[in-house]
Amino acid sequence: MAGEDRILANGAKHIDFQTDPSRYRHWKLDVAGEVATLTMDVDENSGLFEGYQLKLNSYDLGVDIELADAVQRLRFEHPDVKVVLLRSGKNRVFCAGANIRMLAGATHAHKVNFCKFTNETRNGFEDSSENSGQRFVTVINGTAAGGGYELALATDHIILADDGSAAVALPEVPLLAVLPGTGGLTRVVDKRKVRRDHADYFCTIEEGIKGKRAVQWRLVDEIVPNSKLEAKVAERTKEFAAASKRNGSGKGIALGPLTRTFDGGGIRYGFVSVDINRTERIATISIKAPDAPPPADIDGMIAQCAAFWPLQVARELDDAILHLRINELETAMLVFKSHGDSAHVLAHDAFLDAHKAHWLVNEVRHYWKRVLKRVDVTSRTLVTLVEPGSCFVGTLAELVFAADRSYMLIGQKQGDNRAPPAIVLSALNFGPYPMSHGLTRLQSRFQADPSDVERAAAKIGEALDAEAAEQLGLVTFALDDVDWDDEIRVFFEERASFSPDSLTGMEANLRFAGPETMESKIFSRLTAWQNWIFQRPNAVGEDGALRRYGTGQKAQFDMTRV
Amino acid sequence: MAGEDRILANGAKHIDFQTDPSRYRHWKLDVAGEVATLTMDVDENSGLFEGYQLKLNSYDLGVDIELADAVQRLRFEHPDVKVVLLRSGKNRVFCAGANIRMLAGATHAHKVNFCKFTNETRNGFEDSSENSGQRFVTVINGTAAGGGYELALATDHIILADDGSAAVALPEVPLLAVLPGTGGLTRVVDKRKVRRDHADYFCTIEEGIKGKRAVQWRLVDEIVPNSKLEAKVAERTKEFAAASKRNGSGKGIALGPLTRTFDGGGIRYGFVSVDINRTERIATISIKAPDAPPPADIDGMIAQCAAFWPLQVARELDDAILHLRINELETAMLVFKSHGDSAHVLAHDAFLDAHKAHWLVNEVRHYWKRVLKRVDVTSRTLVTLVEPGSCFVGTLAELVFAADRSYMLIGQKQGDNRAPPAIVLSALNFGPYPMSHGLTRLQSRFQADPSDVERAAAKIGEALDAEAAEQLGLVTFALDDVDWDDEIRVFFEERASFSPDSLTGMEANLRFAGPETMESKIFSRLTAWQNWIFQRPNAVGEDGALRRYGTGQKAQFDMTRV
Repeated sequence: MAGEDRILANGAKHIDFQTDPSRYRHWKLDVAGEVATLTMDVDENSGLFEGYQLKLNSYDLGVDIELADAVQRLRFEHPDVKVVLLRSGKNRVFCAGANIRMLAGATHAHKVNFCKFTNETRNGFEDSSENSGQRFVTVINGTAAGGGYELALATDHIILADDGSAAVALPEVPLLAVLPGTGGLTRVVDKRKVRRDHADYFCTIEEGIKGKRAVQWRLVDEIVPNSKLEAKVAERTKEFAAASKRNGSGKGIALGPLTRTFDGGGIRYGFVSVDINRTERIATISIKAPDAPPPADIDGMIAQCAAFWPLQVARELDDAILHLRINELETAMLVFKSHGDSAHVLAHDAFLDAHKAHWLVNEVRHYWKRVLKRVDVTSRTLVTLVEPGSCFVGTLAELVFAADRSYMLIGQKQGDNRAPPAIVLSALNFGPYPMSHGLTRLQSRFQADPSDVERAAAKIGEALDAEAAEQLGLVTFALDDVDWDDEIRVFFEERASFSPDSLTGMEANLRFAGPETMESKIFSRLTAWQNWIFQRPNAVGEDGALRRYGTGQKAQFDMTRV
Repeated sequence: MAGEDRILANGAKHIDFQTDPSRYRHWKLDVAGEVATLTMDVDENSGLFEGYQLKLNSYDLGVDIELADAVQRLRFEHPDVKVVLLRSGKNRVFCAGANIRMLAGATHAHKVNFCKFTNETRNGFEDSSENSGQRFVTVINGTAAGGGYELALATDHIILADDGSAAVALPEVPLLAVLPGTGGLTRVVDKRKVRRDHADYFCTIEEGIKGKRAVQWRLVDEIVPNSKLEAKVAERTKEFAAASKRNGSGKGIALGPLTRTFDGGGIRYGFVSVDINRTERIATISIKAPDAPPPADIDGMIAQCAAFWPLQVARELDDAILHLRINELETAMLVFKSHGDSAHVLAHDAFLDAHKAHWLVNEVRHYWKRVLKRVDVTSRTLVTLVEPGSCFVGTLAELVFAADRSYMLIGQKQGDNRAPPAIVLSALNFGPYPMSHGLTRLQSRFQADPSDVERAAAKIGEALDAEAAEQLGLVTFALDDVDWDDEIRVFFEERASFSPDSLTGMEANLRFAGPETMESKIFSRLTAWQNWIFQRPNAVGEDGALRRYGTGQKAQFDMTRV
């Protein structure tokens, strides 16, 4: 298995994104009525890899996997929760950010993947706040430095203890020669709208900013003396809960462990299977339609729990993508296939649309949105093959539009008497699944002529064969059986022969035509610059700042300004 | 002098951005009435550096310096010109793009600077089209590959010969393992709105696309058989000229050679001087106010020719910035100072505002805009010091707002009886000089509360001392004489000690809060990814594609997907 060359501390062969609160080592999740408290109390001896200690609430990917899990569970398992308090379990320390020894020892690929995942987790706070009414409040009781402050930046409200020592800081540039790359630079000026020269000052001092200036410069929302801190937290919690639009109730849906089987060639989930061809560097992700129509009503859906098809598939696909990203680094392409009864998929889409006001349906829809966004920023060539027996309809058709290229068979294959494939659009292709830059995949696809979106919408519910789909611009190429195998084989071989780096850069540009949002800026302007810096000797070389940190030796810089 | 370690072919000690048509080796500029023809006919033996030949109309920075000069002259010297035809002087070859051997041998810094300048030149086509009514039409008579097609992409209309062989191509990814980074990827999907999957296909084939598909996929505007090509060009020229809003007339303003003196410590121009302290890694750029009020009227301005203060200063500042960027690579900071009579500066601003409908005034305003944009994307820390005797008012105050940090003296300095410094705003701070992301510098600065822009506008014409300026948010720090020297010295020393790379990344993020435009996306999403790739061994290593190109040996890639 291509991937990390470091040894995982838990003896595992790959990094696993599945966890649950009973296994957390770094976070505590306490729920009391409308309020959940997420307490960060990192076990310094439980790093994901060997070779470093997670001191001062510093974190690695393992810490963030727990956080992502907790935030996800809050949305599905805790419909009553309207406010999430983010706190530290350490005395006078909030969080020291990403662990520097971990970063110094990490491969370039791990650094990039680590930052991508932590960015997605933090974007998830904001998504929950905006779309699920779970407002996030950070209580900073000590130093929140680097990634520690970036955690806070992703929340709605930051309370800083006014004790003469608690401070927020982004010391990456002066201390480590890298960027506050987990959204920090972007959120400071784009979300909190800190004036750019104030931000310049703030991002170039090691010690950070505390007290009144932190408020005046908009770095935190308020400062509160320790003696009044708990009262203020209670007051804000009450206010935010009262203003929340969260309309959940009842028990929530337990996100039980995914049923997975790993074998050398891939992973089998319930509805998703992954087949990895390491010679051809292709991972094929097959998605199976539900075996039955959706439940008759909300009660029926709740009775299905996490086995409700749209939820289960989203969880499985999410896990598969994360696994492939970080554990199968030499995979060049993700090839999406599907099979099963399209009518059942469309009926589930209709269910998700009819009941969108219900809190759980709302969560499922937003989860699908987030999984698809995860696909969009995955640095692998995305290909979708629409073949006989497939069910790329409605929500699953988004995987056709997310692909860098899609191929659809005209007619049937010789010796295969299944009907020619058809794409069917549903209402869910026209709104609920925007990309990170704010457009739906069809809007993004049809920027040349927005009326093409309307033309497609007029066909909602119709079975579109390859020629119709091509004519509507929904697929890249419609091929008949004579050409299918050869065309696709040549494409796969060519693609796998190209430099992976240039494909990453190309796809990151072509996928996001049009507007940018704060979220997309994090994955473009900020991330691309950080990745560049993660290649520069001033940061990662033998004498660079990341390697020299904590050794007592000063970093040596090439002073050329590029 | 820090900078290039390669030998300049012309024996010069530094790269010079000044030229004129009599010295062009690669371009011909022919003007006939409303139509100018820019013919690219690269002299393969006149590369900027030794060690490569510019075959097949491939280009290096030297070729682009001529192009930038020509485009600039068209705006100032040719008020009648409404259409610019971009053509090749070679038979069956349009342009092969950036020269690969040049790139393979170039330092990382040169590659980055080369791309930045070429991007600015191409953005200049679009700026001229939008704001000066000079519409650009490209006639592609053969292969337009890579940077060759990117040149065409920056024009308004692309005519492709339909002769079975002329084609457009972006073969960087399959051939060279780098990106079409001179706007190519961005313009394909953002400007020409090519569908993303078509773009994916197009950008991964070496041979490019010709004929009908090139039109269907929006890669070119029309294809024309060779027999009808000249008639079609004439027809389009006539149409574009008729639709042009260019309202110039008369002789235009000759852009004579700048008067410059280089010495070891800097450059002296007429109104701009540059002092370079290589020990402290600081370049101080001082701008002098005009010696007299503006001319009484348009005729008076025309009589001054290129000595009209706003034009001369813009040209000098532009040249100084370009020189420092590429020839003084170890400079950490550009420190802006000014001196002279503020009233004269403001009177010139008033002149530029009163006569903005005049074609030449329009050109001067847009030129200042472009020079300031050049400052914004310069990878040096920008600092502005507002001291007694300075004239940071109106247009020059933009250098306060462009700075990463500004310092303004409260009161006077001991032993200096000049009046305390004052900033004065003019109408020109509130519209005509937007940054590349579309906001004025004050709008960008005051995103937290847009009414701060109005508060500032209410003070137009008032002399604002340090405390008033600080209170309005116009400067970062107001300091009195007691603190001034120490604070600034410590700041300079600290800043110069940081990793240049992390500062580049940080500043590129903090300077551009808020929206993105196609232009800003080119400098962020596209450029940052390209710079990353320009560091990756798959492209630039010994066995990378740039080095191996043309050697007959295949590039060796690390297949890890990052």
